[in-house]
Amino acid sequence: MAGDIHILGVDGIPEARAGEDPAQLVLDGLSHSGIKLEDGDVLVVTHKLVSKAEDRLIDLSTITPSPFAERLALRYEKDARQIEVVLRESTRIVRMDRGVIIAETPHGFVCANGGVDASNAPDSDYVVLLPIDPDETARQIRSAVQDASGARIAVIITDSFGRPWRAGITNVAIGVSGMSPFNDYRGQYDEHGYELRATVIAVADEIASAAELVMGKLDRRPVAVLRGYDFIASEAANGQELVMDPAKDLFR
Amino acid sequence: MAGDIHILGVDGIPEARAGEDPAQLVLDGLSHSGIKLEDGDVLVVTHKLVSKAEDRLIDLSTITPSPFAERLALRYEKDARQIEVVLRESTRIVRMDRGVIIAETPHGFVCANGGVDASNAPDSDYVVLLPIDPDETARQIRSAVQDASGARIAVIITDSFGRPWRAGITNVAIGVSGMSPFNDYRGQYDEHGYELRATVIAVADEIASAAELVMGKLDRRPVAVLRGYDFIASEAANGQELVMDPAKDLFR
Repeated sequence: MAGDIHILGVDGIPEARAGEDPAQLVLDGLSHSGIKLEDGDVLVVTHKLVSKAEDRLIDLSTITPSPFAERLALRYEKDARQIEVVLRESTRIVRMDRGVIIAETPHGFVCANGGVDASNAPDSDYVVLLPIDPDETARQIRSAVQDASGARIAVIITDSFGRPWRAGITNVAIGVSGMSPFNDYRGQYDEHGYELRATVIAVADEIASAAELVMGKLDRRPVAVLRGYDFIASEAANGQELVMDPAKDLFR
Repeated sequence: MAGDIHILGVDGIPEARAGEDPAQLVLDGLSHSGIKLEDGDVLVVTHKLVSKAEDRLIDLSTITPSPFAERLALRYEKDARQIEVVLRESTRIVRMDRGVIIAETPHGFVCANGGVDASNAPDSDYVVLLPIDPDETARQIRSAVQDASGARIAVIITDSFGRPWRAGITNVAIGVSGMSPFNDYRGQYDEHGYELRATVIAVADEIASAAELVMGKLDRRPVAVLRGYDFIASEAANGQELVMDPAKDLFR
């Protein structure tokens, strides 16, 4: 089924500024890198590009911390304004201990600091928030890039999340357009006739992780193209499907 | 730093039988697929191949369930012998609810059913266990494949784990040899002079995930080669480093 896969890094994309069109930045980068998109390519875009273009930056000097944020900041020796922003971006605190806040975001993602990130902000007094609706942004990028390139593609918007029990962070998909985020083997049988009951692979997360290998953190390479993966095309599918159903989640 | 990456699927590897040499199976597959390893390649091997070669199969007809396993089986409508094997492979139960057992293995991995897998076993009355020491197996495969090929490589042994809060499973590294499982940006600075304090990327897991995209579950393709990733070579590094330090783990 799946043949060989290529992951191409897209260079020459300047830092996004508020109001810029993410799709145009991607198209400029593809052109600069001499990459011509093909049918079936997956375009992977880090959320940092999207968040900056959508002006999801917060100037901490404008933030007045609540008493709760002040108390946490004192206890954990953190910036109270930064904690205030984390609390504003969170719908629920999942864990708060040892200076770490694991929170649920309005999208349903559970991650450190509710997705609020101080690194890669253009100024040490700024923090970067997650995009409001990464699925909608993925749809817009996909539509514009398909129109400009003529290729039928999928788009994944990524962030890097930590995870319980395992050290380090990995890239995951927070917005998806044009493909199912899953490869669902349920109901299929292995070579021994055993039905694969619990085998649903989160391929959008695997693609996000694969793309990180060419993106890096310091390479100023916010976009990659993954070529050769036979994804399940879907107009309706989205990244919200990657949020586990709370009724099935043993770690809410 | 990182250029383009290729992921090559290795075909023609028959199902491993007890006592077979995993390295020889890999070398035969590479030869069959016409892949000549190059310096810097990462060889990714699914644990199923290793577990079968190392005879980590359990014939359920030989298992007498304990009273506890019997009671769980009755409650969740499962096979008591299978639950007995899960308990024997576990050092600690992290969650047990709604028919799901999330357990810690002797390696420190936290995963469904302590890594015991009923799919892909050669008989419906068999289950497959994790390798005893996947790091040691990775070292052995690396040593033998380097000797035979002349290429300096890294080896990763994989399994697919679920994770809290996100739907679906992804491939992760359970054994590593020849490379650091991390890309550690701590102490480095982003383009704005902001020190990257918490940015340690679990690249071995990302490579495991990338390789899954060409391996699939039903493709009988238990090996892949990832080419073009500039990993940090290390003789001492291993997959145990991916187990989070319990002192830092908020989800023990």
